[in-house]
Amino acid sequence: MALSTPVTSVADICLAAKEAAGPLAALGSDVKDRALLAIADALVARTPEILEANARDLEAGRANDIGDALLDRLALDPARVAAIADGARAIAALPDPVGETIDGHRLPNGVDVRRVRVPFGVVAVVYEARPNVTIDAAALCLKSGNAIVLRGSSSAIHSNRVLAQIAAEAASAAGVPDGAISLVAGGGREELAELATQDGVVDLIFPRGGEGLKNALKAVATVPVIYAASGNCHVFVDASADLDAAEAIVLNAKVQRPGVCNALETLLVHADAAAEFLPRALRALDAAGVELRGDERVRAHAPAGVAVAEATEEDWATEYLALTLAIRVVDSAQEAIAHIGRYGSGHSEAIVTRDTASARAFQLLVDAACVYVNVSTRFTDGGEFGMGAEIGNSTQKLHARGPIGVRELTTFKYLVEGTGQVRA
Amino acid sequence: MALSTPVTSVADICLAAKEAAGPLAALGSDVKDRALLAIADALVARTPEILEANARDLEAGRANDIGDALLDRLALDPARVAAIADGARAIAALPDPVGETIDGHRLPNGVDVRRVRVPFGVVAVVYEARPNVTIDAAALCLKSGNAIVLRGSSSAIHSNRVLAQIAAEAASAAGVPDGAISLVAGGGREELAELATQDGVVDLIFPRGGEGLKNALKAVATVPVIYAASGNCHVFVDASADLDAAEAIVLNAKVQRPGVCNALETLLVHADAAAEFLPRALRALDAAGVELRGDERVRAHAPAGVAVAEATEEDWATEYLALTLAIRVVDSAQEAIAHIGRYGSGHSEAIVTRDTASARAFQLLVDAACVYVNVSTRFTDGGEFGMGAEIGNSTQKLHARGPIGVRELTTFKYLVEGTGQVRA
Repeated sequence: MALSTPVTSVADICLAAKEAAGPLAALGSDVKDRALLAIADALVARTPEILEANARDLEAGRANDIGDALLDRLALDPARVAAIADGARAIAALPDPVGETIDGHRLPNGVDVRRVRVPFGVVAVVYEARPNVTIDAAALCLKSGNAIVLRGSSSAIHSNRVLAQIAAEAASAAGVPDGAISLVAGGGREELAELATQDGVVDLIFPRGGEGLKNALKAVATVPVIYAASGNCHVFVDASADLDAAEAIVLNAKVQRPGVCNALETLLVHADAAAEFLPRALRALDAAGVELRGDERVRAHAPAGVAVAEATEEDWATEYLALTLAIRVVDSAQEAIAHIGRYGSGHSEAIVTRDTASARAFQLLVDAACVYVNVSTRFTDGGEFGMGAEIGNSTQKLHARGPIGVRELTTFKYLVEGTGQVRA
Repeated sequence: MALSTPVTSVADICLAAKEAAGPLAALGSDVKDRALLAIADALVARTPEILEANARDLEAGRANDIGDALLDRLALDPARVAAIADGARAIAALPDPVGETIDGHRLPNGVDVRRVRVPFGVVAVVYEARPNVTIDAAALCLKSGNAIVLRGSSSAIHSNRVLAQIAAEAASAAGVPDGAISLVAGGGREELAELATQDGVVDLIFPRGGEGLKNALKAVATVPVIYAASGNCHVFVDASADLDAAEAIVLNAKVQRPGVCNALETLLVHADAAAEFLPRALRALDAAGVELRGDERVRAHAPAGVAVAEATEEDWATEYLALTLAIRVVDSAQEAIAHIGRYGSGHSEAIVTRDTASARAFQLLVDAACVYVNVSTRFTDGGEFGMGAEIGNSTQKLHARGPIGVRELTTFKYLVEGTGQVRA
């Protein structure tokens, strides 16, 4: 009879989260912020415990030969734990999105209708190796009044367990309802499928990970999912561009951090600017260690000593996430916009121009989460946009596009007040 | 070689819609509104053509014995066509949601970031017998700058074809890009599946129909869908309620139009108000022809001659959509809120009270699209809320809750402008 193991099912964890979601939605900002600061303090205080759990994950990772890159993403040290704690403190300092009146008006019959921001309820976050996501996601959900169900990967299971436990205990002690922060025990595909089909219990799933994770989710999810697609981002240097600004933006967007989704992947150059801009830009990019791939007209402008390989159709469609750049000469802003419409992934697209007509056409006709005029694509980021931390970047159009911060972790309800009005 | 039939595939229709979506998103309000008025005029002018096509659907419907209710939903006459045309004119008169700046701010480095409302791109609407949806949905999508792909049921295929063709021709003549309004040829499940998996082409699907249609879509859709769940709506009459207002609201919510999703299904009455309120309310409901089902405490208050059947667990969970009402006595506002949390479908929930604490708790703790204080639930409607026509009512939390009007048929993009800023 009493031989069953104490493992809690995914469904039970989600039900407990839903139970917590009601009181959590009505919790004051003061309690939530105290809980976030308590989580930060507990993380610092319990660093040895975290590092010990992390050491077990690292050991298993080495035994399983997961590779240096994955081991680095997995590894924690006192400085990294302190940075995670600081992240929770920064989220505590953000304004509370819950309760904001978005808009409202009075109907002719005297009834007041207003839209007020409320939490979703239960948010699930599925993620891969980085254990810091455990706290980042939990803190963002707590701030926005959502219960969170975390599902990390099996490679980080010991680290994630300790981190989630510390967060749940500190939050609970500060007055947050039990069940508001929980972690699904294992990292298996069956658990992912169970989590992704909790209709009516889980309100929303955010995947944070690669294409494999997203496809696994797409195949099974019946709960709404906000996907963050890849960022095949472009900079278009128009005929009238300030070439100093253009060079600075192209270098920044390509080189500053090439492995992220808002980095530049294809440079488009107006034919009228090509002769003056391309030699200097190619030289600068080459000096920065960028592998260059251009069409015929680009290659014709390559200065001596700078190698530009022949770009193929595949290059236009590729998100390199590396120090590689595809480059194409176009004959007009319209051609640049059409190229972006065909190959872009709707993430971040920039024009460098001094021409208001080109700028306006680019803003109106490029269909992307973030459309830049004379600014680097690298600004697509919750922190840079002044929204605080982000849980991811959406390239879907439903609900929220671009950075998903605490505001985007909310929905709204209509509050309607009157004095006995009925419908005629 | 040239023997292929001229039937256009679902995929081709969607691609043509996507092609149209770019220029449509940038189209001025003047062109869109002229097109809507032209559609209205064309509907009236071509009424004989519409009625002839409708007669063929009705004939097939009678031959297939689809029943009087479905035949009535299918039937058009000159007055109904004129009403459809008036609907298009009313949509023309709404403010254009496209281009609205939702919010914006300047970053410390001088970069301006603003969120601007833009169309989704391609919206698909799948619907059942009523041919008026063809024009209602096309007009809402045109106004909001979206290309629309319509997929009606096979029972209305001739009517829908003529209506869609009239709309597409009138819009095209007014300067709307070809492909902006189109109808998928047949009403089969294969076509539904093909439509629901046009990732990257179709941005969003709205089903307008019963549970069968929604379940068929849920099983296959990879494109985001906004579902309109059922409305198991409650009115809670609190201890302090103004009983005249309570009776008026309960009767209005139950009786005025019982077959719609914002109608009352379960009445909750505070124990302290039961002895005074229930006899008069039960008598009035009975006189209005409502079949009553109550718990033991409700039945104890039934006046002589008013039959109140015993309510079962199933009654609390049922959306009758008919002149039937479940009634329960609760001991507190908290118990009412818990009942609604358990059985409600998140549509429209009302409290009748004079107590500010009860009203506040109800607003904070009831998780529904529309939460009413001293107002009938029947106001959950785009027209009543002053939003103009609606394409449906969402009980999902993602993107939009409640009525889906022209504003809810849009997404946004970030427009970011600077003078050469790069990320540090």
